[in-house]
Amino acid sequence: MSRPTQQILALNAFEPGSAKGLPDDVRALVERRKASFGPASVLFYKEPLHVVEASGTFLYAADGKRYLDLYNNVPSVGHCHPKVVEAIAHQAARLNCHTRYLFDGLHEYAERLLSHFPASLSNVAFTCTGSESNDLALRMARVSTGNPGVIVTETAYHGNTTAVTEISPSSYKKGAPPAYVETIPAPDPAHYGADVSTGFAQAVKKAMTALESRGHRLGAFVADSIFSSDGVYADPPGFLKAAIDLVQKNGALFIADEVQPGFARTGTAMWGFARHGVVPDMVTMGKPMGNGFPMGGVVTRPDLLSRFCDEFGYFNTFGGNPVASAAGLAVLDVIAEEGLMENALAVGAHLMSRLKDLGTLCPQLGKVRGSGLYIGLDIVDRNDPANPSPATATDLINGLRERQILIGAAGPFGHVLKVRPPLCLTINDADHFVDTLDRVLGDRPAS
Amino acid sequence: MSRPTQQILALNAFEPGSAKGLPDDVRALVERRKASFGPASVLFYKEPLHVVEASGTFLYAADGKRYLDLYNNVPSVGHCHPKVVEAIAHQAARLNCHTRYLFDGLHEYAERLLSHFPASLSNVAFTCTGSESNDLALRMARVSTGNPGVIVTETAYHGNTTAVTEISPSSYKKGAPPAYVETIPAPDPAHYGADVSTGFAQAVKKAMTALESRGHRLGAFVADSIFSSDGVYADPPGFLKAAIDLVQKNGALFIADEVQPGFARTGTAMWGFARHGVVPDMVTMGKPMGNGFPMGGVVTRPDLLSRFCDEFGYFNTFGGNPVASAAGLAVLDVIAEEGLMENALAVGAHLMSRLKDLGTLCPQLGKVRGSGLYIGLDIVDRNDPANPSPATATDLINGLRERQILIGAAGPFGHVLKVRPPLCLTINDADHFVDTLDRVLGDRPAS
Repeated sequence: MSRPTQQILALNAFEPGSAKGLPDDVRALVERRKASFGPASVLFYKEPLHVVEASGTFLYAADGKRYLDLYNNVPSVGHCHPKVVEAIAHQAARLNCHTRYLFDGLHEYAERLLSHFPASLSNVAFTCTGSESNDLALRMARVSTGNPGVIVTETAYHGNTTAVTEISPSSYKKGAPPAYVETIPAPDPAHYGADVSTGFAQAVKKAMTALESRGHRLGAFVADSIFSSDGVYADPPGFLKAAIDLVQKNGALFIADEVQPGFARTGTAMWGFARHGVVPDMVTMGKPMGNGFPMGGVVTRPDLLSRFCDEFGYFNTFGGNPVASAAGLAVLDVIAEEGLMENALAVGAHLMSRLKDLGTLCPQLGKVRGSGLYIGLDIVDRNDPANPSPATATDLINGLRERQILIGAAGPFGHVLKVRPPLCLTINDADHFVDTLDRVLGDRPAS
Repeated sequence: MSRPTQQILALNAFEPGSAKGLPDDVRALVERRKASFGPASVLFYKEPLHVVEASGTFLYAADGKRYLDLYNNVPSVGHCHPKVVEAIAHQAARLNCHTRYLFDGLHEYAERLLSHFPASLSNVAFTCTGSESNDLALRMARVSTGNPGVIVTETAYHGNTTAVTEISPSSYKKGAPPAYVETIPAPDPAHYGADVSTGFAQAVKKAMTALESRGHRLGAFVADSIFSSDGVYADPPGFLKAAIDLVQKNGALFIADEVQPGFARTGTAMWGFARHGVVPDMVTMGKPMGNGFPMGGVVTRPDLLSRFCDEFGYFNTFGGNPVASAAGLAVLDVIAEEGLMENALAVGAHLMSRLKDLGTLCPQLGKVRGSGLYIGLDIVDRNDPANPSPATATDLINGLRERQILIGAAGPFGHVLKVRPPLCLTINDADHFVDTLDRVLGDRPAS
């Protein structure tokens, strides 16, 4: 790896040692959390947020205030969306078994979901999480190609199982991924120059050679097409195609991790890969699929699934159960009925434009990148704009929290503000964010 | 391995080639399933069951009939239990975020859950499935012991991730687990003789030596204390202690997989391991934890969790979210309020006694084993009772389905009827099962 990789999972973390000055209710919960969960439970913010309710794009806290949510992509069609809640409640009261019996709903959901994919991707296996989806996709890739090698980007995060952690460099606090994994820099023009497409494909080629030199032929290239944890790299549309062509021509598979960009977030299509004019061999889904109901899935070609099933039995107890099917179907309905893809496109474009305008006035604001409602905003040293400033980013995140806006960070240095709100974000919400960011920047002229 | 291992995941599977004679609604759903899910979706029974509703111990089918459920341990406190459904519906409408904010419910649930464990097991990490739980436990064991070796039983099944499949011999259709895994025969007196405790401990010792000879020191012994997929081996209580003592004295860890026996099913305690007077190093949970809401967890010692967190970040997006916490708390409430542990003990004892009585009259019925409402019933060759008869078992399972009772199989040959109903099974339900089994045996005197 050419650059140090930040622990993505610990960005904007509360420091457990600093519980002293917290409000009583917060301190009490922090202490109870520490007792039950130990160091495994990371909280956000210098002062953790105690939430009690949520609706649409807002979280309501125990302090009586409401917080605009620019962070949470799981409640993608809006927090506690009544149609999804009703689907879950209705189905949970009626039938909630596993998929070795027949029941309605499952087939309708699978067909509706698959109708959003290229025709070659006609089979689906349901799981419960994005991690389980990526884990299964990796296994299928290994079985069908016979090759263990995997290429991912330097700050990639694809989930939390043993196998998926090995292809998630950002999960390592010590050490690094094993020899069968090769990392390449994110598709950043600052690294590859203006022709990101060619540069990125060349990096993939070099990584394939490096893997082969270690005895691991390439089995799969795994990427989320918005490069979320790398710091959000969306443009130009189509830049991925050269790399994917190279991968697929060499008999390896492209696993499109749509846990982050999927389900209409990027504004122009249901899936991030579609912006690049490529057809993946497998597509993995998670987070927003059930708007908070734990569900995931792998969509793939029948030949890949069949080869896998020749070797292993696979069953996922909760995967595709009646409640998951009902939740998933409701999410698809809401995306269509409320025009959330179109909203993501319109509000995202407005937001990017306003952030760029603000950037011309504020030296701490660097590049703005993104598509639809997945936007990254570089925070840089005001005196040296080429230098990322994670300290300023952390400062802004906590400053925004004080002014009731929730946002997170990404990127190898944690210096990229990550805008990833529910897709029902309004123009007013977007304006409120930019105006507030302006004020917070004014509050904190230093650093 | 000394015996061939049956594909546990495919026991009692519908043969997709035999869709012709099925009722129209069933055939249509079977065909839609095949189109969307390919070979990954296995259905139960010669004639798959089309279910539409469920309540308590009953599933209601599209054919208008109700089926007594002796198979499903996920809806452990009863299908669609109103208290759990209400908890899910109420919380899903109010707040469903991740655990990096503070919210009520999570801490109460964690504390209530941990109160059921030995004091040394005072930390919990929430996941979404039993597979994720076992995957995380394996990772923690590897980090803290530095040793990769794992011992499991011959027909073990611990879940579906890449890492967990490697310690699940019953998931392999071809090949076998890798060299760091050693299997031992299930704790069957037919194999070990009357002193199962000593024999089983000796098998563990031998397996440790075998692993070391291959360069893999033992890191963990993983077992579910009811030995579910091996065919249900419960007695005598305490027989596991010698093996666990040996494992722990050698610096390795005991991971108690409570996905099957946990949450009061064995009738005498919340956890299967408690019957054996041992204290595990980690306990993994899944299936019944949320009565169908996808949730799981790993309970462990703080020192083991801390060592893991020094090396890796771990975050589970849906794990421990407000809805999972509410569902989990409701399950604990219902177990206590409805006396389900006591019911499991009483009804289980009655059922075992009646099955034993029936066995004296029916040569096809072999040994009855179990604890509480986890019971295994050997089905044997009527002319040679020492011989397992998976064909008869399959016949009985389909015969019981015709008479509206749902039951599954287990064991290396698929010849063990597995009785694993919701814990609210009544004495009447139990009697109805035994009476019906008697009739089905009468229907099918052959084989």
